Amino acid sequence: MAVYTEVGDDELVRFATEYDIGEILSCKGIAEGIENSNFALTTSTGNFILTLYEKRVDADDLPFFLGLMDHLAGAGISCPTPIHGRDGEALRTLCGRPAAIVTFLSGMWPRRISPSHTAELGRALAEMHLAGADFAITRANGLSLESWRPLLARVQDRADEVAPGLADELGGELGALEACWPNDSSGGLPGGVIHADLFPDNVFFRDGKLVGLIDFYFACNDMFAYDLGICINAWCFEPDLSFNITKAKRLLTAYRQVRDFSDDEMAALPLLARGAAMRFLLTRLHDWLYTPDNALVSRKDPLEYLARLRFHRGVDSPAEYGLE
Amino acid sequence: MAVYTEVGDDELVRFATEYDIGEILSCKGIAEGIENSNFALTTSTGNFILTLYEKRVDADDLPFFLGLMDHLAGAGISCPTPIHGRDGEALRTLCGRPAAIVTFLSGMWPRRISPSHTAELGRALAEMHLAGADFAITRANGLSLESWRPLLARVQDRADEVAPGLADELGGELGALEACWPNDSSGGLPGGVIHADLFPDNVFFRDGKLVGLIDFYFACNDMFAYDLGICINAWCFEPDLSFNITKAKRLLTAYRQVRDFSDDEMAALPLLARGAAMRFLLTRLHDWLYTPDNALVSRKDPLEYLARLRFHRGVDSPAEYGLE
Repeated sequence: MAVYTEVGDDELVRFATEYDIGEILSCKGIAEGIENSNFALTTSTGNFILTLYEKRVDADDLPFFLGLMDHLAGAGISCPTPIHGRDGEALRTLCGRPAAIVTFLSGMWPRRISPSHTAELGRALAEMHLAGADFAITRANGLSLESWRPLLARVQDRADEVAPGLADELGGELGALEACWPNDSSGGLPGGVIHADLFPDNVFFRDGKLVGLIDFYFACNDMFAYDLGICINAWCFEPDLSFNITKAKRLLTAYRQVRDFSDDEMAALPLLARGAAMRFLLTRLHDWLYTPDNALVSRKDPLEYLARLRFHRGVDSPAEYGLE
Repeated sequence: MAVYTEVGDDELVRFATEYDIGEILSCKGIAEGIENSNFALTTSTGNFILTLYEKRVDADDLPFFLGLMDHLAGAGISCPTPIHGRDGEALRTLCGRPAAIVTFLSGMWPRRISPSHTAELGRALAEMHLAGADFAITRANGLSLESWRPLLARVQDRADEVAPGLADELGGELGALEACWPNDSSGGLPGGVIHADLFPDNVFFRDGKLVGLIDFYFACNDMFAYDLGICINAWCFEPDLSFNITKAKRLLTAYRQVRDFSDDEMAALPLLARGAAMRFLLTRLHDWLYTPDNALVSRKDPLEYLARLRFHRGVDSPAEYGLE
């Protein structure tokens, strides 16, 4: 939970005059979010979200993120939509930081995941993948396979502080993933814009129905099935870290009703899910070891992803995810 | 900044059925507030604030706080008003904590204080003092003079870590305050319900006009002029800690246009302002020394209040606050 930048009332009122959003009535920092400072903004015309982009987000990526939200919203995906100022610009500066106002999305993220949630998720993910197809800007995945070895190098010396033997296990795992990760020279897999961080707190529901996706600040171009692998990790394990095949089956079945996947994608799913577990394990481990104790953000347990990684490593066939 | 308790979507939807506030559309933790967990709640009928009372608030005091907000709102003071459930109750339980929903107040607190802000404040403070007169419940001030010696005992050994000689200065100061603090046996001063924490972040403005007071969780029965002393400390010093007599004069002048004060109150003002500085110096010093580095709340510099204390100690006459 974090608000890194305090926005003054005078500055905000001045800032808002660049938009047609009415008079500012209230602005309250939101305690969620790790990367940026977010504010619940109430004006005489309604509710909005104001985001100040902090240093963990590369300002050069902002046209991609904001453009993507515009593009997806235009294609019928329910997601925050950037509000453009009177000059047409969605991206401006506030308190010395890049800043944008986006529409307020109703809904709450589910704390207790049911199979019907994952079915809703699968459909929405496939719709997002299709909707992103003709988005003109591209952005490489900064946390793809190529980034894992430098990340591992940063944490390897201290990984055993978190679990004995972890450094060796990660080294072996990374070698295995590098040896068989799908790439263009192996024919590749279908890809396009993926969300890349579609955890439950980024998916809003109302009355059990999915009403929107938020937080596109990890979105990038990569294999669609890798996004599915991320969602399997994020949605289909129970709090005791056991795998719930019903949730995965509902996720994948609903997805393929909107966008069917090829035999190659299906066959690659265990590997991609294993890689997705590796990606979150490595970044969580890095944050665990290097986040100062007095930081505003709470660290997430990396070992939850070691358990997932081991599960996927033992998967022989996509049938174990409920696929027929 | 802090949200101590996470509220689940299912629990919240169930909780809301006890009220006539419509369907829950969104609930976001607010990053302000130190004592309690606050959430910006959006329903199909509007915006509200949901508060979960954490352990720093005594549950036995909640009927006073909620009753006071009801009472003041009924008397025309703009403040958050508790929403009563279908059963008439405003205070219920959520996530194992006492919880209440109050109305959402528009406005933003001023970061840069101008004399016109303090004039608005003076009028509103006097109106609140008058409006509280016939409130039936009473609550002793838990942070009045009697509490300062035990607080000093907790910090005395380590006070010099913060500033050399501070322990001795505080000891001498407390002795002086105890020797001449107004009490009932000395005839007393007019009193009633005071806010006791009316800092700028608890006062909302719109277009330069005061539109509401919030955060009544330190409210109690004490001398009215002590509340003025708190406001002088909180509103009339510049960032460089110099005293701004214009702001104080506007505060006091506007106050007495609504509720005039007696010669005794006027004469006591330097002493009461000095005591108010002592109260915030002691609690900030305590938090400074005893808040763990990894706590969610940011500690406030106690020495800002040492500077104020020294200023008030040197005041010979209420004319130095701009009073004629």
